[in-house]
Amino acid sequence: MGWVGAREKRAIGSGNCGGESERLRASIRKRASEREEGARLGLAVECAPVSSSNNRSSKRPDKPATAMDPEAFLEMANQVTKLKMYPYFDIAHCTLCCLYVRDDLGTGSLPFSRKHPLANWLSSMLTIFAGGLLTNFLLGEPVLGALKNNQQLLLATAVWYVIFYSPFDIGYKIAKFLPIKVLLAAMKEVYRVKKINDGVTHAAKVFPNGYLSMILIGTIKGNGSGFLKIMERLMRGVWTPTAVEVMQPTFPTKASIAAAIIFVLDKKTDLISAPHALVYFGICIFFVYFKLSSLLLGIHDPFIPFENLFCAIFMGGIWDSLAQTLAGKKGAAAEKGSDAVKNG
Amino acid sequence: MGWVGAREKRAIGSGNCGGESERLRASIRKRASEREEGARLGLAVECAPVSSSNNRSSKRPDKPATAMDPEAFLEMANQVTKLKMYPYFDIAHCTLCCLYVRDDLGTGSLPFSRKHPLANWLSSMLTIFAGGLLTNFLLGEPVLGALKNNQQLLLATAVWYVIFYSPFDIGYKIAKFLPIKVLLAAMKEVYRVKKINDGVTHAAKVFPNGYLSMILIGTIKGNGSGFLKIMERLMRGVWTPTAVEVMQPTFPTKASIAAAIIFVLDKKTDLISAPHALVYFGICIFFVYFKLSSLLLGIHDPFIPFENLFCAIFMGGIWDSLAQTLAGKKGAAAEKGSDAVKNG
Amino acid sequence: MGWVGAREKRAIGSGNCGGESERLRASIRKRASEREEGARLGLAVECAPVSSSNNRSSKRPDKPATAMDPEAFLEMANQVTKLKMYPYFDIAHCTLCCLYVRDDLGTGSLPFSRKHPLANWLSSMLTIFAGGLLTNFLLGEPVLGALKNNQQLLLATAVWYVIFYSPFDIGYKIAKFLPIKVLLAAMKEVYRVKKINDGVTHAAKVFPNGYLSMILIGTIKGNGSGFLKIMERLMRGVWTPTAVEVMQPTFPTKASIAAAIIFVLDKKTDLISAPHALVYFGICIFFVYFKLSSLLLGIHDPFIPFENLFCAIFMGGIWDSLAQTLAGKKGAAAEKGSDAVKNG
Repeated sequence: MGWVGAREKRAIGSGNCGGESERLRASIRKRASEREEGARLGLAVECAPVSSSNNRSSKRPDKPATAMDPEAFLEMANQVTKLKMYPYFDIAHCTLCCLYVRDDLGTGSLPFSRKHPLANWLSSMLTIFAGGLLTNFLLGEPVLGALKNNQQLLLATAVWYVIFYSPFDIGYKIAKFLPIKVLLAAMKEVYRVKKINDGVTHAAKVFPNGYLSMILIGTIKGNGSGFLKIMERLMRGVWTPTAVEVMQPTFPTKASIAAAIIFVLDKKTDLISAPHALVYFGICIFFVYFKLSSLLLGIHDPFIPFENLFCAIFMGGIWDSLAQTLAGKKGAAAEKGSDAVKNG
Repeated sequence: MGWVGAREKRAIGSGNCGGESERLRASIRKRASEREEGARLGLAVECAPVSSSNNRSSKRPDKPATAMDPEAFLEMANQVTKLKMYPYFDIAHCTLCCLYVRDDLGTGSLPFSRKHPLANWLSSMLTIFAGGLLTNFLLGEPVLGALKNNQQLLLATAVWYVIFYSPFDIGYKIAKFLPIKVLLAAMKEVYRVKKINDGVTHAAKVFPNGYLSMILIGTIKGNGSGFLKIMERLMRGVWTPTAVEVMQPTFPTKASIAAAIIFVLDKKTDLISAPHALVYFGICIFFVYFKLSSLLLGIHDPFIPFENLFCAIFMGGIWDSLAQTLAGKKGAAAEKGSDAVKNG
Repeated sequence: MGWVGAREKRAIGSGNCGGESERLRASIRKRASEREEGARLGLAVECAPVSSSNNRSSKRPDKPATAMDPEAFLEMANQVTKLKMYPYFDIAHCTLCCLYVRDDLGTGSLPFSRKHPLANWLSSMLTIFAGGLLTNFLLGEPVLGALKNNQQLLLATAVWYVIFYSPFDIGYKIAKFLPIKVLLAAMKEVYRVKKINDGVTHAAKVFPNGYLSMILIGTIKGNGSGFLKIMERLMRGVWTPTAVEVMQPTFPTKASIAAAIIFVLDKKTDLISAPHALVYFGICIFFVYFKLSSLLLGIHDPFIPFENLFCAIFMGGIWDSLAQTLAGKKGAAAEKGSDAVKNG
């Protein structure tokens, strides 16, 4: 129920539009309720601008339908914040998690899945529900609470079964087919943003002033499987202590940290004056865009330049260079090599 | 207090016996309360059929005492569900756990126990209270709550001391003496069934619809030391990631899963019409029987044929064979070897 | 607020001093409230005996100022129990924790801190807040609750930054300068005693009869970083299962166990008749004394002789010797070597 206040906030955030805009908004609200049935399909993001013929207070009746109406855009953002996740987005998330587990098993994935179905299932469930399990643990709630939704659990088990045990491996092959994979990846990013937002909201309820906790919980909700990876591998009898997420954070982790910080700023400070729905929608677009870039164009981490700059300024880069210069270039040559470009 | 409703359930479960049976039951109830003193001994399982002479509504006053009276059987089952665990069954459980730790230490057990008594004690306590610790963790209750009973803790410490530090190792040798060991093992199985039932009842209170949680908690209560084994070894500085329980579940784990599923079915559905006490008693007999078979006859895992069948049908066995046949026998020869019989 | 009852306890503990002493105490109470401003500085331990000229009920107006007045001593002890920890003692604790992390990283500490600032920060925070995190986990409270104090978190982050990233490494060099280090170590010991006491008080609230839990929580609060060491190293991608604290408990752990036992005895039994403030102060002195001995004189573990005695008597030492003697000296020669002096 983190979205209840969004509409009110919007009213405050763009409150300088006057009474006319108020009437406009009332009509939008009416339209929105009419269209809730459409939203129930879970995917009914209305991308086409709303035709304003049935909008009696509209000031732009003669505008062409191809241009993006700001109000319609805001409404679309609102629809996105209220998207129902249950069947389709959950399926996308579960599919990608199971694909990840299967790819992580490498060439031995099929024999392993035949020999150790229990470990395989537990491992997949740990990956799928990683965010909820870790979050519940950190917030002192029952860890198993993440598994209490029987419908989600059945869905996850069904997806796991299709990916690992479908006849002639057809489920796996379909999920690996590029257009399908791209679609699933895009849906998972939308799901991720929702989970980050939920995580921040949840943590803010438990620790109203715990800004770090909010960011941590948001990040873990966003990329839980990354943080639980070593535990999940342990369930399969594989122990890789060097693969710990915080050593080399992946792009989803960094993006989740950034998104969590933005949500905390939006929720707790006045720095972001845009309506919550717009912030949420913007982050969605950012996540989907970079995921697709990564899948299709091979761009992997747009954060690296910023990190390098930040590390150079704050994490000792400049001072180290200065110290090296002062100490003479000879003695520092060895140390220089280890000041590698890759930061994390 | 999970057993309170058992008698009522029995009344419903066998409600077709009419009013006569009601009177019978009332007299049983009276007898039961008279015999509670006997039950306080903890071991007073009345195996001999009750002589029905003092039972005024009995229909079979002339039945020979050697045949098993169904009512007496039911009463006996009821007694088993109400067995007091505290001193004797707890001692059996603690003894077997300490024996396990000592055997797990191998030939270095005595030197280790002399050099690292603290690690040794902590390791033994982790094994003894494994189920409670893990369950509390998963259900969001204080983990240390498993250790809050000072009497149990003192008992466990005393048993640990006797097993590891008794003069001339006499405690260990007695516990390893086969008849004693068989008795302890049988008692531990009764204890295990009680813990599984308690676990399922407890989980059902926390998550009324969390069927998976109930099964998980029941299983972990039943064989907690198996799941905590790698942590318990870690306390002794030994790290064995491949010994994780879910990779190669042992017989107690499989039996605990089966028992937990039966208890969940009994509690949450109408599939099992037998009274709860009978279900409980039946599982007890099953557990004790297979434990004794395993100890005396070397039968280790009666689940394996069922597992192989299940895996062949549902876990891809048949489809894999079909795919191999279609792909020709040459290419599949390598893969065949890895489709081993042992499933888990 | 564990100290509220200390003064009342003192009144009971030394209640045989009569009404005269009552008046004395009233005046002390007045003086104490006058001096609370001084105590707010956090370091205002009044070591000089109080001049008794303004104490109208004093019986020893002619005593020389150099001798320690028992009442003044008690008052001093009371002041110590009420010391405010926030800025200075917290800084000492954070500094030593960060120094420990940096020394644990060895020669690769600077390159590591440049390459993995996130892992470095998380590792340092885990060390600094180890006691709180582990305690919250064991008592079923939100784990992240240990990080909810933003001021402490900022302080810890600032100290971490100074130790790892200050220009020309000046922060690290200052903290390593022996007089500074000795002062910080002494302050940390005072902090440790407060944390042990808080831990015992906290556990006593959650488990009023859980004596073991109180000792465990007190110990973990006192030396949390020791118990979390392997997890903290894991955050840096290093896995050292043999470095588990319970295998070879360090002196701080042993001292924390002893202090926790004394606090439990003081709180739950009548065995210790001294006022709580005196017990607390005595433990403080003991901790600081042995820490300084360890730093300056190289005395590392005053518990070892007692441990060896205890192990010889209770942990099988004598019986093993007897068994060896009976079995003849030949066969036992090999085993003898492993019965090493070092116990833990």
